[in-house]
Amino acid sequence: MADNLDLVTSSDPLHPSQLIPELCQLFYQLGWTTGTGGGVSIRVDNLVYIAPSGIQKERIIPLDLFVMELSTSRVLRAPPAPATPSSCTPLFFNSYRLRNAGACIHTHSPHAVLATLVYSGPTFTIRNQEMIKGIRQGTTGRGLQNHDTLVVPIIENAPREDQLTDAMAAAMAAHPDTCAVLVRRHGVFVWGATWEQTKVMTECYDYLFDMAVRMRHLGLDPAA
Amino acid sequence: MADNLDLVTSSDPLHPSQLIPELCQLFYQLGWTTGTGGGVSIRVDNLVYIAPSGIQKERIIPLDLFVMELSTSRVLRAPPAPATPSSCTPLFFNSYRLRNAGACIHTHSPHAVLATLVYSGPTFTIRNQEMIKGIRQGTTGRGLQNHDTLVVPIIENAPREDQLTDAMAAAMAAHPDTCAVLVRRHGVFVWGATWEQTKVMTECYDYLFDMAVRMRHLGLDPAA
Amino acid sequence: MADNLDLVTSSDPLHPSQLIPELCQLFYQLGWTTGTGGGVSIRVDNLVYIAPSGIQKERIIPLDLFVMELSTSRVLRAPPAPATPSSCTPLFFNSYRLRNAGACIHTHSPHAVLATLVYSGPTFTIRNQEMIKGIRQGTTGRGLQNHDTLVVPIIENAPREDQLTDAMAAAMAAHPDTCAVLVRRHGVFVWGATWEQTKVMTECYDYLFDMAVRMRHLGLDPAA
Amino acid sequence: MADNLDLVTSSDPLHPSQLIPELCQLFYQLGWTTGTGGGVSIRVDNLVYIAPSGIQKERIIPLDLFVMELSTSRVLRAPPAPATPSSCTPLFFNSYRLRNAGACIHTHSPHAVLATLVYSGPTFTIRNQEMIKGIRQGTTGRGLQNHDTLVVPIIENAPREDQLTDAMAAAMAAHPDTCAVLVRRHGVFVWGATWEQTKVMTECYDYLFDMAVRMRHLGLDPAA
Repeated sequence: MADNLDLVTSSDPLHPSQLIPELCQLFYQLGWTTGTGGGVSIRVDNLVYIAPSGIQKERIIPLDLFVMELSTSRVLRAPPAPATPSSCTPLFFNSYRLRNAGACIHTHSPHAVLATLVYSGPTFTIRNQEMIKGIRQGTTGRGLQNHDTLVVPIIENAPREDQLTDAMAAAMAAHPDTCAVLVRRHGVFVWGATWEQTKVMTECYDYLFDMAVRMRHLGLDPAA
Repeated sequence: MADNLDLVTSSDPLHPSQLIPELCQLFYQLGWTTGTGGGVSIRVDNLVYIAPSGIQKERIIPLDLFVMELSTSRVLRAPPAPATPSSCTPLFFNSYRLRNAGACIHTHSPHAVLATLVYSGPTFTIRNQEMIKGIRQGTTGRGLQNHDTLVVPIIENAPREDQLTDAMAAAMAAHPDTCAVLVRRHGVFVWGATWEQTKVMTECYDYLFDMAVRMRHLGLDPAA
Repeated sequence: MADNLDLVTSSDPLHPSQLIPELCQLFYQLGWTTGTGGGVSIRVDNLVYIAPSGIQKERIIPLDLFVMELSTSRVLRAPPAPATPSSCTPLFFNSYRLRNAGACIHTHSPHAVLATLVYSGPTFTIRNQEMIKGIRQGTTGRGLQNHDTLVVPIIENAPREDQLTDAMAAAMAAHPDTCAVLVRRHGVFVWGATWEQTKVMTECYDYLFDMAVRMRHLGLDPAA
Repeated sequence: MADNLDLVTSSDPLHPSQLIPELCQLFYQLGWTTGTGGGVSIRVDNLVYIAPSGIQKERIIPLDLFVMELSTSRVLRAPPAPATPSSCTPLFFNSYRLRNAGACIHTHSPHAVLATLVYSGPTFTIRNQEMIKGIRQGTTGRGLQNHDTLVVPIIENAPREDQLTDAMAAAMAAHPDTCAVLVRRHGVFVWGATWEQTKVMTECYDYLFDMAVRMRHLGLDPAA
């Protein structure tokens, strides 16, 4: 495997190799990627940019990134061993293959994890919140209305992240309009057509998870 | 429509075209404008500076801004299509036309939204808090006293922000001394004579919304 | 009154004219000086440096500062009108005259205000916390032990800050070992021999106020 | 004792003399080292880098650091008097001598302290959380599984930190797999093979302490 340094070398601040480190720093500040948790992947056509596994997210630099070919899953560019691609890679690929996503963000945000604990069933539900308008309908790409009911499927956690691949795909098939899947006691995966849409929706989902938990704590019903 | 680039070009850090991006970054850090939510508008005489709709607030640059003429609602300067002015534009104009405001800030702060949930009636009320002194009386411009009762009207949310225009105007007419209107399950609009007063009052209102929710959670009455 | 620009001009980052703006920015980030609330004053021998009243604390620059003479209360240096010295000035002077303090910090931290609401009596009390070791005994300057009981007097708020002067002085006389006075529904004043000790103690008090409120919320007794 | 300035002079940002100040700033922002509390120590072979006692952690510079010899406890380099090495020094040495650690982090995080209050017994216990995977087994260095039960011993606080030395060592002996010891009403000590592992584990532990306290507050059992 050639090093293909050019794949992660760019002077464009919006190039995935520049953007992923920048977003990882922001997400660390938001409490989404503490302790090497969570991650970001961006796709440009057939190229998928992925952070390495088990590395402090807020310290990632462009040279740490992997680049994979979507159609073949082949690694086109890797940093020096012993780095391995994020263990979330098959989950990121779910969003690319099943939804043609342009990016996928995974957080371990306490808001997401608490939402999966407060909602003990198979879905998270909230309605009548302005921030729901920031979420798009998976099938049409149109924004939801603030009086729509937002439903996010929750799958059960597994020992390894690749063991979540099928359950995540099944939840996506059962919920064609969702742009996110929660993983109980673990976090959330959010995808969208572009990195901007994905980041914006991740912020909206996170806000709504937090709002729902706070409402429950205050004795209010988020789904009313 | 000419581009009128000069309207958003300035080397003065306090010019609205420089200030709005700076404030948007700060408000993002405060949790007020996550997920493209919220916004800031500043007026200088007959010119109104407004951010575009649906753009990440913390990444706005001067060239992203719209400039409108207050008296005619005409767009004097727009960024390249497909940008559209903030959907809050008619609500910002309420503050300019009904109160002669110099700026208007809209936040989706969770503190504001939770306050509208904990206070299920048509007003938010708090008293005996030092931070009330940071709020001015709408009719006189004088600061309130810390033992005054602060009342903020709460209007019900609607599917589109322009549909809130009349309800916001009615709340302003019914509460001539308020410098803010809460929107249930949505957020808050705050205006003032200058951008400084508007920012300071938004901080004070936000502090008081948060304080009231925390007090209720602790079993204390914020209006006592 | 001469302008005496030299009093607020220094290339030393630890000079009060440089330090006060820096600390105000930090305290804004900590939520202590939002909405122009709170403030910082530093004394060097007979000179007292004070921020102006009603100005956004995180935007203060050295040229905004007042310098007063401790022995005479005379203003030696003022920024252009209409600036006026912080309304906390007589309270800062309490710490300089009654305790020979080197600095005094005033915050509107929600932690302090909530502590005065949860503790409805005339004192805040906590014990058996490591962070108590960060607080010094007013009479001896020695650090407290972590098993000592920390007592902070709470005075009632008044319409104007100068009306708190006598009550604060009385609380200091009644509690010779305290380095802080809480003001109900308002905030806290903390002083110390140097700006470093004052800042460190303000952080420790704020931590303990927050801890006590959280403990009460969890059904635990902070004074046990 | 020679000054040995070269021990704390380096242009390598990952040299302990550069890294400790950087990490202290980060930990201050995380609320772990407020009020001079907490600390960081890094070991390179027989050299142990330690911050001074009672200094604002976020303002430490390389020249403030002590360097000690692990085998002899001799101070090889000290800043000018009256600085003294961190009072946690014997506790840091526990991790170096009993576990051959490469770094040790001590925080006063409110999450850690609240965890020791909510768990009134001799251990903190949590299970079925993804973030448990960020913690390593002390004996093997392997990462835990997310369905493993994480147990952290809690020792009782003492007036001076050196008085905790034996209790910490005893807890380490009784819990050979732990990489952390909580101190009731005080904070936590975390160590690991490298500074990276130690920082990552401290973040994971802190996340889990916070999660457990929030779960208890919501009426959920973190150990279920």
